[in-house]
Amino acid sequence: MNRETPNYILTATCDGVIGSLDVVTRFLCERQCYVHEMHTFDDTEAHRFFIRVEFKNDGADALPIEELTTQFAEAANKFSMQWELRDASVPEKVVILVSKYDHCLQDLLYRYRTGSLNIEIPAIISNHPDLQGLAEWHGIPYYHLPITAETKPQQEAQMMEIIEETGADLVVLARYMQVLSNDLCKKLEGRAINIHHSLLPGFKGAKPYHQAYDKGVKLVGATAHYVSSDLDEGPIITQSVEPVDHSFTPERLVAKGRDTERMTLNKAVKLHCEQRVFLDGNKTVVFSGE
Amino acid sequence: MNRETPNYILTATCDGVIGSLDVVTRFLCERQCYVHEMHTFDDTEAHRFFIRVEFKNDGADALPIEELTTQFAEAANKFSMQWELRDASVPEKVVILVSKYDHCLQDLLYRYRTGSLNIEIPAIISNHPDLQGLAEWHGIPYYHLPITAETKPQQEAQMMEIIEETGADLVVLARYMQVLSNDLCKKLEGRAINIHHSLLPGFKGAKPYHQAYDKGVKLVGATAHYVSSDLDEGPIITQSVEPVDHSFTPERLVAKGRDTERMTLNKAVKLHCEQRVFLDGNKTVVFSGE
Amino acid sequence: MNRETPNYILTATCDGVIGSLDVVTRFLCERQCYVHEMHTFDDTEAHRFFIRVEFKNDGADALPIEELTTQFAEAANKFSMQWELRDASVPEKVVILVSKYDHCLQDLLYRYRTGSLNIEIPAIISNHPDLQGLAEWHGIPYYHLPITAETKPQQEAQMMEIIEETGADLVVLARYMQVLSNDLCKKLEGRAINIHHSLLPGFKGAKPYHQAYDKGVKLVGATAHYVSSDLDEGPIITQSVEPVDHSFTPERLVAKGRDTERMTLNKAVKLHCEQRVFLDGNKTVVFSGE
Amino acid sequence: MNRETPNYILTATCDGVIGSLDVVTRFLCERQCYVHEMHTFDDTEAHRFFIRVEFKNDGADALPIEELTTQFAEAANKFSMQWELRDASVPEKVVILVSKYDHCLQDLLYRYRTGSLNIEIPAIISNHPDLQGLAEWHGIPYYHLPITAETKPQQEAQMMEIIEETGADLVVLARYMQVLSNDLCKKLEGRAINIHHSLLPGFKGAKPYHQAYDKGVKLVGATAHYVSSDLDEGPIITQSVEPVDHSFTPERLVAKGRDTERMTLNKAVKLHCEQRVFLDGNKTVVFSGE
Repeated sequence: MNRETPNYILTATCDGVIGSLDVVTRFLCERQCYVHEMHTFDDTEAHRFFIRVEFKNDGADALPIEELTTQFAEAANKFSMQWELRDASVPEKVVILVSKYDHCLQDLLYRYRTGSLNIEIPAIISNHPDLQGLAEWHGIPYYHLPITAETKPQQEAQMMEIIEETGADLVVLARYMQVLSNDLCKKLEGRAINIHHSLLPGFKGAKPYHQAYDKGVKLVGATAHYVSSDLDEGPIITQSVEPVDHSFTPERLVAKGRDTERMTLNKAVKLHCEQRVFLDGNKTVVFSGE
Repeated sequence: MNRETPNYILTATCDGVIGSLDVVTRFLCERQCYVHEMHTFDDTEAHRFFIRVEFKNDGADALPIEELTTQFAEAANKFSMQWELRDASVPEKVVILVSKYDHCLQDLLYRYRTGSLNIEIPAIISNHPDLQGLAEWHGIPYYHLPITAETKPQQEAQMMEIIEETGADLVVLARYMQVLSNDLCKKLEGRAINIHHSLLPGFKGAKPYHQAYDKGVKLVGATAHYVSSDLDEGPIITQSVEPVDHSFTPERLVAKGRDTERMTLNKAVKLHCEQRVFLDGNKTVVFSGE
Repeated sequence: MNRETPNYILTATCDGVIGSLDVVTRFLCERQCYVHEMHTFDDTEAHRFFIRVEFKNDGADALPIEELTTQFAEAANKFSMQWELRDASVPEKVVILVSKYDHCLQDLLYRYRTGSLNIEIPAIISNHPDLQGLAEWHGIPYYHLPITAETKPQQEAQMMEIIEETGADLVVLARYMQVLSNDLCKKLEGRAINIHHSLLPGFKGAKPYHQAYDKGVKLVGATAHYVSSDLDEGPIITQSVEPVDHSFTPERLVAKGRDTERMTLNKAVKLHCEQRVFLDGNKTVVFSGE
Repeated sequence: MNRETPNYILTATCDGVIGSLDVVTRFLCERQCYVHEMHTFDDTEAHRFFIRVEFKNDGADALPIEELTTQFAEAANKFSMQWELRDASVPEKVVILVSKYDHCLQDLLYRYRTGSLNIEIPAIISNHPDLQGLAEWHGIPYYHLPITAETKPQQEAQMMEIIEETGADLVVLARYMQVLSNDLCKKLEGRAINIHHSLLPGFKGAKPYHQAYDKGVKLVGATAHYVSSDLDEGPIITQSVEPVDHSFTPERLVAKGRDTERMTLNKAVKLHCEQRVFLDGNKTVVFSGE
């Protein structure tokens, strides 16, 4: 059995009641599926149960995934579960939105190219032409969709069209620098990740490093979160932090922050694409892989 | 349902086969036990399966723990499981061995006194009289057992007697500074934790901070591990590290290391006493609580 | 020459002009003082220069500190320096304010007792009687000064009297849980350190761990800062952070935070007492010892 | 005065005697040079003094750097100083050696391309052709110099020729995977940096992640060090560490380690190229910029 090549990932959430765990484990056991990684969480305040299981389905009489899916639907029904069953080897489709900054994009492309992130990137969309060369070197279509206050609705419609046509599972705002409309935020709920360059909820909005400088903080950080219609208030997926001192000008904070931002964004994208993140109201449940 | 007061903890390990997970979850489900924290691990190289479950048993027809224990023994038997079922509210009994340094002892006593560590301390044993006052202020019996090369066998016999009479679940070497005999190491296998003041396997043996200084390393650390008859080679439970620079003399390394040592030792003791650590050959499986 | 026993510490700040560094280094050189640690910082925005020098004055013709002080006053005068010259072996006098929580106090007392913090503690003041036993075991006078909305002015007057009579260099609010009046804040400007249990400026005010829980943050922290009349807005000295996840209830955040709080407060007190912290407007310049 | 554009960097080391600091600060003051960053260290065991100064030389009568250099040579002579005076805006010339792994190279190239590392890269040398495309996209000459046991002397001679012809200030072994001959190590003493994928001195030699896996360590790391003829024993510049647990296979350790390796190597290269690293026997003195 090869730990490095899990076959299937089952994720589910439902009310926290006796039997919600057993229905999953029994289902898998009876079909000779071997569980090699499993996480559960019980949000006792919201009375919600969360489960993620990686399992092998490689026995002699292994059912095809379609069959498993059909059968689990029945089992899950009793608990009104929201659930998903995926073949882990199928890459997630990720559309990336950028502006002019390339550090986050560069990092995602490198991990995509080397297979460290198991994703496909069917499109990179930007309101500027600057990063076209980088996209082309990686053989990825680049859509330059300029935006003004007047053309915002049309531009967003074009973006949404690309997102839909490519069948994107996830949209990543890799320092996109534009605020999405409420409407678009709603359409992308739970499947659009933004990187904000501060430790939210501190320093929301524009120029967080300058805000941090003015306050004289001794730590700066970055927050990857799901996009929501409340600016910089979406459910947090992961956060990172770096120590700084009095000698950091805003410019040096910006420079130092770039590494934190790209590591944090990459981590969130990886967690999401491995089905490790669940929405739980305005928060997330994250079953880290480590 | 109160997340803060888990009632029972079940830990088990056996060969990694289909059914080893299901036997646990089904057992609990059928007895109306509600699982609120669960970890599993599958060591595919050693073909070993590890599981830890925290659950509530507070339904109308809840079985007493003795009954659960009897019944699970039967279920576990089929898989030749090694297992344990505990009431989480019963504190572990921890005997602490010290020498003259008090930073680790002080920290353990503080956490014991404030309930942050759910333990009892039936005895503190030392080859020096220095820390008697600290023990007494906390109302804990202090055994001063001096040791010389000649009296080592007798001294260890006395220690073992205390360990057995107090029914200790765990022995903690909180900078004890004496090498235990092979014989004693074997008797305490898997239930004696030592703190070594380096990042093992680097800097084994005496004066690790001086070794670190001579090498000019930029990080120093501490390792909490189970005691084994190979000096400083026992299974590692947890490790921590702190950055240092050229300005650190050996004396300053020692001073800085004290915080790392006590935090690391405390973490290991807490993990062990919450049944989160499993021996897996010469390594450990640790289901961290976070 | 012994790196472990610096004799003198000179700290100074003045406008950032050519000559402000040289006046210090030349002064010391001409008096055969050997500099073994030195930090400077130039706040180019505020046009302020900051310097801290540790030096030996152990030559054959070494001047007494009083003489050095008199002579340096003259040199410093040209640059309108604010400065201080101290014998590093003389401990700072630290008065500690507490309420009922003992984790920060315990930690400071341990470091005081073992010499890890080179301080004297002439008084512990509390609005509750709970921690008297801890103070007494360490042989430190404990002043129980209860406080109500009505008696606040008198209580603060009593505190200030103790602070003045003991000649305190520093006042430490070790989870004191009371807001000091504006008047007292002003009197203690630059010499009172508070520990706030969040990463300021996030989660100001009451119950920051509960605020953090509601937001679903993935990092929690603590901030040691000088007290100012703007609540939780004083100049930040140091900050620390710990990762958390969805499984942390407010109670567990509080428990985890205790270690962060005491480490952070201790670090700030140590930095201050080694003359490593300078006020620079609403920020600090901190020359860390590492 | 602009903190972001320092003009000159003066680094010096000599015996630790009174006057060694003053000779530098007085020299600069008398020539109206404004110091805006300064570090000193006194190795009391080796009796060595180290100093690094960043200063502006932008007054009305500012001397050209050649003149400053000539004049400082005289001042430094009295203390037998080893020293260097550089214009900070002139980039260091860095030759990079690689094998097949591209994660470290990729990172260095990105930082070079975006100006985050102020370096020139006149050549990339490899014993494999694999990374030629990456070099070409960045417009950097790529030398493919295959190596066998027999051709090692000639291959190293070719490398040395390139290093000399390009006037390289620094050679970076970005996972080069070949052991340099003693002879080449000596020629490159103090100006060749290697990244080793473990926390030296733990896990020297081949396959350190597999060694770490076998030991069951809970932290893995990387070490950037100067190359010396003792394999993996050269003076350490910087080290980083990441937590791991029982679920990490050797393959996952390797994957996780890539980020640590490239961050650590980049940090060391940046420190070196900003003249922040001094050799001090078999150790280093590092004046970090933060």
